[in-house]
Amino acid sequence: MKQMNYNKGTGKCLNWIISEEHFLPKFQGKCETIFCLGNGYMGLRSATEESYVGQVRNCFIAGTFNKSADNEVTELPNAADMIGLDIIIDGDRFSLERGTFSNYDRSLNLKTGELIRTFNWKNSDGKEFQFTFKRFVSLAERHTLVCHFQIKPINCQADIIVKSGINGQVSNSGAQHFEEGEKRVFDKEYIQMTQLTNQSRISFIHTSHHKISNNYSELNPRFELDRRKILTVFEAKLDDGQAFELTKVSNLFTSQDNDISSVNANDIQKFALEQLKIQSKKGYNQLLEENILAWEERWNFMDIKIESDNDFNQLAIRFAQYHLFIMTPKHDNRFGIGAKGLSGEGYKGHSFWDTEIFILPFFTYTFPEIAKSLLIYRHYILKSARMKAKENGYAGAMYPWESALSEDGEVTPVWGAIDIITGKATKIWSGFIEQHITADVAFAVWQYYMITDDHSFMEDYGYEIILDTGIFWASRLDWDKNSNSYHIKDIIGPDEYKEHINNDAFTNYMAKWCMENCLYYAEYLKKEQPEIYQRINEKIEIENYLATIKEKSGKLFLPAPRDEDLVIPQDDTYLNKPTINLSQYKSQKHVGSIFRDFNLDQINGMQVSKQASVVMLMYLLEHKFSHDIKEANFKYYEPKTLHDSSLSLSTHAIIAADINHLDLSYSLFQRAANIDLGPNMSTSDHGIHAASLGGIWQIIVNGYAGIRMVGGKLRISPNMPPEIKTLSFSINWKSSVLKIELDHQKIILSNLGEDNVQLDLMGTDVSLQKEIVHEYHYALSKTTIVEQNS
Amino acid sequence: MKQMNYNKGTGKCLNWIISEEHFLPKFQGKCETIFCLGNGYMGLRSATEESYVGQVRNCFIAGTFNKSADNEVTELPNAADMIGLDIIIDGDRFSLERGTFSNYDRSLNLKTGELIRTFNWKNSDGKEFQFTFKRFVSLAERHTLVCHFQIKPINCQADIIVKSGINGQVSNSGAQHFEEGEKRVFDKEYIQMTQLTNQSRISFIHTSHHKISNNYSELNPRFELDRRKILTVFEAKLDDGQAFELTKVSNLFTSQDNDISSVNANDIQKFALEQLKIQSKKGYNQLLEENILAWEERWNFMDIKIESDNDFNQLAIRFAQYHLFIMTPKHDNRFGIGAKGLSGEGYKGHSFWDTEIFILPFFTYTFPEIAKSLLIYRHYILKSARMKAKENGYAGAMYPWESALSEDGEVTPVWGAIDIITGKATKIWSGFIEQHITADVAFAVWQYYMITDDHSFMEDYGYEIILDTGIFWASRLDWDKNSNSYHIKDIIGPDEYKEHINNDAFTNYMAKWCMENCLYYAEYLKKEQPEIYQRINEKIEIENYLATIKEKSGKLFLPAPRDEDLVIPQDDTYLNKPTINLSQYKSQKHVGSIFRDFNLDQINGMQVSKQASVVMLMYLLEHKFSHDIKEANFKYYEPKTLHDSSLSLSTHAIIAADINHLDLSYSLFQRAANIDLGPNMSTSDHGIHAASLGGIWQIIVNGYAGIRMVGGKLRISPNMPPEIKTLSFSINWKSSVLKIELDHQKIILSNLGEDNVQLDLMGTDVSLQKEIVHEYHYALSKTTIVEQNS
Repeated sequence: MKQMNYNKGTGKCLNWIISEEHFLPKFQGKCETIFCLGNGYMGLRSATEESYVGQVRNCFIAGTFNKSADNEVTELPNAADMIGLDIIIDGDRFSLERGTFSNYDRSLNLKTGELIRTFNWKNSDGKEFQFTFKRFVSLAERHTLVCHFQIKPINCQADIIVKSGINGQVSNSGAQHFEEGEKRVFDKEYIQMTQLTNQSRISFIHTSHHKISNNYSELNPRFELDRRKILTVFEAKLDDGQAFELTKVSNLFTSQDNDISSVNANDIQKFALEQLKIQSKKGYNQLLEENILAWEERWNFMDIKIESDNDFNQLAIRFAQYHLFIMTPKHDNRFGIGAKGLSGEGYKGHSFWDTEIFILPFFTYTFPEIAKSLLIYRHYILKSARMKAKENGYAGAMYPWESALSEDGEVTPVWGAIDIITGKATKIWSGFIEQHITADVAFAVWQYYMITDDHSFMEDYGYEIILDTGIFWASRLDWDKNSNSYHIKDIIGPDEYKEHINNDAFTNYMAKWCMENCLYYAEYLKKEQPEIYQRINEKIEIENYLATIKEKSGKLFLPAPRDEDLVIPQDDTYLNKPTINLSQYKSQKHVGSIFRDFNLDQINGMQVSKQASVVMLMYLLEHKFSHDIKEANFKYYEPKTLHDSSLSLSTHAIIAADINHLDLSYSLFQRAANIDLGPNMSTSDHGIHAASLGGIWQIIVNGYAGIRMVGGKLRISPNMPPEIKTLSFSINWKSSVLKIELDHQKIILSNLGEDNVQLDLMGTDVSLQKEIVHEYHYALSKTTIVEQNS
Repeated sequence: MKQMNYNKGTGKCLNWIISEEHFLPKFQGKCETIFCLGNGYMGLRSATEESYVGQVRNCFIAGTFNKSADNEVTELPNAADMIGLDIIIDGDRFSLERGTFSNYDRSLNLKTGELIRTFNWKNSDGKEFQFTFKRFVSLAERHTLVCHFQIKPINCQADIIVKSGINGQVSNSGAQHFEEGEKRVFDKEYIQMTQLTNQSRISFIHTSHHKISNNYSELNPRFELDRRKILTVFEAKLDDGQAFELTKVSNLFTSQDNDISSVNANDIQKFALEQLKIQSKKGYNQLLEENILAWEERWNFMDIKIESDNDFNQLAIRFAQYHLFIMTPKHDNRFGIGAKGLSGEGYKGHSFWDTEIFILPFFTYTFPEIAKSLLIYRHYILKSARMKAKENGYAGAMYPWESALSEDGEVTPVWGAIDIITGKATKIWSGFIEQHITADVAFAVWQYYMITDDHSFMEDYGYEIILDTGIFWASRLDWDKNSNSYHIKDIIGPDEYKEHINNDAFTNYMAKWCMENCLYYAEYLKKEQPEIYQRINEKIEIENYLATIKEKSGKLFLPAPRDEDLVIPQDDTYLNKPTINLSQYKSQKHVGSIFRDFNLDQINGMQVSKQASVVMLMYLLEHKFSHDIKEANFKYYEPKTLHDSSLSLSTHAIIAADINHLDLSYSLFQRAANIDLGPNMSTSDHGIHAASLGGIWQIIVNGYAGIRMVGGKLRISPNMPPEIKTLSFSINWKSSVLKIELDHQKIILSNLGEDNVQLDLMGTDVSLQKEIVHEYHYALSKTTIVEQNS
């Protein structure tokens, strides 16, 4: 049975629409996630209006973290549901699991963020009805959520009861974050419910308005109250052919919002009601129009056009960008991006290195203002990072492995899945010893700076992060007498199947890079911007640490490529561990299948990796490694990597392209694109794979189009698999906007800005004034700059 | 479609079985409630194993009250589910809403407390399976819960996954009471999950064991962990005709239990595991046998045999007794009975006057030890009652309208349903001004004493309640200059449609009775048991209050029957209020329909009553009112009473019988019996109607058999409607057990005890030595005592 269709739209909608063509409850989790709506403030998982077993109704507001109990870590609380409808027809609750349905279609238009579901349904008495549900979360007005429901009897009449409202009887898998608050009806039209998070004391104010149009507009609703629930109830006798249409406009405000003037719940209640009165008068179509205009503005810049032998590729990149855009709290720099965006309870809304290493490049090249906001968040949580360093006996800023708000510190849960051997829950060590995040953040700051030239960001935020993380790394090193060098002991690198290891290659190289970068900018500031240096020094006493950082970074042990095969040891012991036949796990249907046979202790003892680690290192610090080293390490490590993290495939796809393994690269790209969009029904149950979506963008832009910032300089060097025919998109580079169009014969670069752009174009330094058309023949590696019109 | 069958059993099971003969999701709430299992310690709502939308999975442990948040009232927390099964067949979750089923039957055997569900089911591929589910909560070992699941493929093979375990992702309609605790697997067989209530700090320890029998016994399970959830997972390939059988034995302990020696969670975890190892070895059948023996012991005494023109009557009384028995925490006198027993979230497990006035007589006459435990509970919460009196500026003991534990005080919620006029939630005044509960408790103590002669109870508990409530009532009166008498102002009587009234007849009469009873026993104790008097006086200083009580009780205003029509004014203003045509509300399908048209303020202003009030008064203090007054008031008030409380019908049925309106009485009895058992599908969604079940017992025993304690003396005066042919049952009376057998021609009374029993038999004082056979002709009111064998 064909469940999904990726090429449904035609004309203006071509390759913009993802559709579900048949309803099967077991695909609920996936569809709730991939059809998720949002605007970065609000994330609304796309549960169906009517209820089904196993459904997860989630609505998250970015940054509203709360600890439901002392022994829980803080997480994004699941706000009251404003989507659900109880539809009772002739006394029976409507459900697609009963009766029969036809012409089913649920489609998300990525261009507009509108979700539409239509079908015909016959109940067990043979009465037939035409259903249409529509909804969107407004990008024009971020508090607003608009729904439309229509039912039309076909050659029959029926009694209908529709219950719709605000339902706070939801939780985060049983954890309840809210204390129940006031429930009100205003003007016999508007309903409002307030809830308060039990620890962080954030008020959530939900307000809804229902309007019946056309045929049944004289109906008066009644109102039902229950615990944490207020409903508007309509009862009608439906006439043959007479559609019953219900428009519901809702808004959601919290006392943490930065666009309201009061934190007092009563003030916000009044304000929300006033706003809703204005919004609800506009009606569905006008509100949708405003939303579409807001989306157009974004797509006009960020759209990437792909011609390839499979339209799925075009949709996959748009899908990635749509989700990256709706998950990102661009409105408020106090908050980061959750590892599942705002689309599910997975990872509790916490930010990981996923943001800086996987997602940020999309924003840095496309919407640098948003990238800046995300990096200011990392400045904002320096408080957490310093707290963590201190608690662990280190200096400087040690970023939490998982982070929430500035005051939260490390928020990684301590206990995970059950250990099949001991019968106890497994301890999650990442929050204690997975520390490369502190290098990743500093790297992202520097990358952002190199691409944008945003000096004021660096002065206000960036330098402080670079210097304070440098201080941390120097404090983190241990002197090793035997080797006469500094080591980093007891660590987890990106490959989380290796715990408590020493000298993880990725961590050591990145730590050294961090310290050197810190020293460089310290010297630079001292010389060029002494007042900035002074200001930062007063805060973090960098001056006192410089000598130590210099001494230690010079003596930090870096695992070198082995002479015999150029393989860089992932850590001190990895290469000495036994290998096992991994074929059954490499061909697994579901990630983590190895845990059915081994526990983490046992996996720790074998040459098997969860995800890119040395390969990731060769991507981030690519200028430090030769083509041969990259190839050798890719060939060594990839067969031992199960890609059990969704962060793994994109990096491998890029490096595979770099070393000309284009077939493998394309297949890894396809696998990455299928993590969320693919047919595997349960992969996305807990939410979208945010980092993987960022990785998909990187495969296209940084990988296949070959747009890279290397050592502060732009390099363009495409490596397109033959399946990709053409690429066309724009990026920001410092003060300019560059348009890139390429196929397998030529690259056209257009500079839409004022300033000339210096770049390395496939190994040749060029200065791009207005346009360069560059012809090349990939097989011959022959490149010629054809013309430059100025 | 016929949903329920009330006469399914044959032979030994005749009139013991209630069955659901077709599965319809809309009847879920009703069936979950009426099929509820339990033993007074544990109450397990009978949700089906597989999940459906709208299902309410409840498991309550008596007395484990918790306040989930500061702004909530304390309630019984919904413990983790140990019943649910996810059954996945060929990749699809099993659900009766999909595919087709036949031969459906779900039956609760009231005699054994075993619930069995069987059906055949065909999935959408046409594969057929035979299903059987069985379960019971053990009456022999109150912590133990036993389930059995069997599936057999018929002419097919299939892949099956069964997930079963302990699921704490439940809540009380969204309110979460538990902090998540430890989850463990022991011996790759036993799973255990601990949760802790967030305010009262009670540990709940859930432990389960799964065993596959016969064909698939070599299967090894795997274990899945999620938030608040631990599951045992079996995967099997089912062969044609080979049944897959799973037995699950679970137990549940809390740190509040009075039968374990430690309150430490670790100790209890170990103890629970040891106990489960013993219990699980016994297997389903042996555990069931032990449970059946425990039930037999109870039924041997409490069974009431009814011959009537409708077997439903026999079943209805057994149904009532079954539920009264399983809802009552007979094991622990710190806890009372919830208004919905342990069968649903309604009324939060709180105790009301329902216990003393409606339920207690069943226990007092049948299992006096249990009645005693329930009254000791009222002594135990004197702490709450004194706290409430003090907070309200009164003296003595003022019982909370709703009560939980001794330290909880008044626990009535303050806000209720929405006011259709103001749009705000309605304030619930009962916790403030519905005060007759304090008289009801004292009345029940006295009634228990008169029926049982339990002197030691009175000395240890009863006198103190009688005296301290007397003190309260005196302090509650206001002097009214105009009438030169004491009034009770600003009150709610039993008729809750009248708020803030003065001189509610029921309250005033009962208060006077209370004060007089207090004075009587104070004088009695002073004279006969001065050391008891002294002990109580040291506690409550009764001596200081006696003069005031005497003065005030003598001058308390009692609304007298009007000269013209003998109607007793329900309160100072009721009879002056306008009447409206109530016919549409009297014939309503669902209670409370009047609120669709009026708010409580408006209802307050009309002659319309929710429930028995003056009629109730004439039942409790029957010796104070003549037959004519009873008849006049019944005829006046019943037509104005909507019976919107389930407490109303039984009292009316009894008084109707008393005044010889047997047709009306029988029809009220039928309505009462149908409150839970009847076809109206949503009446019992929030739980069983505990008081109504007690009322059903009273209709039969106190009403139709006419067994009454009047002024301390036994009176037997049957008033059987013609539809009831014979009645046969036993009661305790003081130190004796009496057997009563009656039809419309004769009564046979047997005294199974040692002492002669003095009683009023239809107006004649008799002394029952061994047996009296009393013949009478109802129509002629001719009665003759025929013989007495000694």
